[in-house]
Amino acid sequence: MRNAEATRERILEAAMEEFSTYGVAGARVDRIARKAGCNKNMIYIYFENKETLFKTVLQKHLSRVYEDIALDPEDLPGYAVKVFDFALANPDLFRLIGWYNLEQQAVGSLSERAAVQEKKLKTIADAQHAGAVGRTFEPGFLMTAVMAIATAWTAINPYGPSYDPDAVSRLDRTREAIAKAVRLLTEGEDGRSS
Amino acid sequence: MRNAEATRERILEAAMEEFSTYGVAGARVDRIARKAGCNKNMIYIYFENKETLFKTVLQKHLSRVYEDIALDPEDLPGYAVKVFDFALANPDLFRLIGWYNLEQQAVGSLSERAAVQEKKLKTIADAQHAGAVGRTFEPGFLMTAVMAIATAWTAINPYGPSYDPDAVSRLDRTREAIAKAVRLLTEGEDGRSS
Repeated sequence: MRNAEATRERILEAAMEEFSTYGVAGARVDRIARKAGCNKNMIYIYFENKETLFKTVLQKHLSRVYEDIALDPEDLPGYAVKVFDFALANPDLFRLIGWYNLEQQAVGSLSERAAVQEKKLKTIADAQHAGAVGRTFEPGFLMTAVMAIATAWTAINPYGPSYDPDAVSRLDRTREAIAKAVRLLTEGEDGRSS
Repeated sequence: MRNAEATRERILEAAMEEFSTYGVAGARVDRIARKAGCNKNMIYIYFENKETLFKTVLQKHLSRVYEDIALDPEDLPGYAVKVFDFALANPDLFRLIGWYNLEQQAVGSLSERAAVQEKKLKTIADAQHAGAVGRTFEPGFLMTAVMAIATAWTAINPYGPSYDPDAVSRLDRTREAIAKAVRLLTEGEDGRSS
């Protein structure tokens, strides 16, 4: 039983590498099997097919993000900086997300992700009612803008790496700018002098 | 000669459809030839290989964007709304950009794009000196944040479509929110009361 668990983990690890490099359509199950040091049939027994394996890998890594980076509505700027740091440290996961966005018709929807996002929107809405977050923007727009800025320097993003290539070598400046930008959006027009 | 030009155009059109659906690695030159109604060899004669064809298609469509949407430093909120509208109207181009980000090692760099982006940063820097744009953020950060927000609802973006799925059916609200968010970032801390 422990052996089976270890094999499963090795497959998931090899699959992460293969999928982040080649995407769903481009990934080869025999290469994953070779990297994991197991028989190709084992992969089909554990994960049914390539699409389900991709979805399992992506969900596993996203679950880790949800656990590691909690949304603190009292400190959205700090949350955005944590997401930025995480994105830089995990380029493979963001490549996986990039492939998913392009190939999701083959993969299907991620139910846990939808539930987590729903909960985050509720958290923001509650914080707006309590006055901790400004009401200029609706929760969905605000979370979209915050996440778009925090992840704009991943390799799958068309803008950060080309418009602001120094961001990664000047981390303190970038973190500070992200925090400032999110603060401006969070306070919204309530913070305006006019 | 006119005939050759027409064939070339038909190939580029068929290639756009094929590449936006399957990406670089997944695209099949024989499918493109079939859709364009020409011989597969014609494609290699005109475009050398699949990677060059992809790059030609992408550059052609990006050039059109550069012409159609001018960066007005006096009205960055209006610019962002135009980019948002354009992104919604051209999902295929954004899928192409998505594939490019994941597969660019095979395709190589886009020199015109780099030159256009350089010019935009200069425009923003000049506008900051002239006082038309606030100085809270450096030009590279500001352009990154503006573009990230304006394009956050394309299908290749992980956040807009899931956090704010109504954005597309409530266009006026979304446009207004984008303009407001970009205004807050453009004015920066100069607009703050504290």
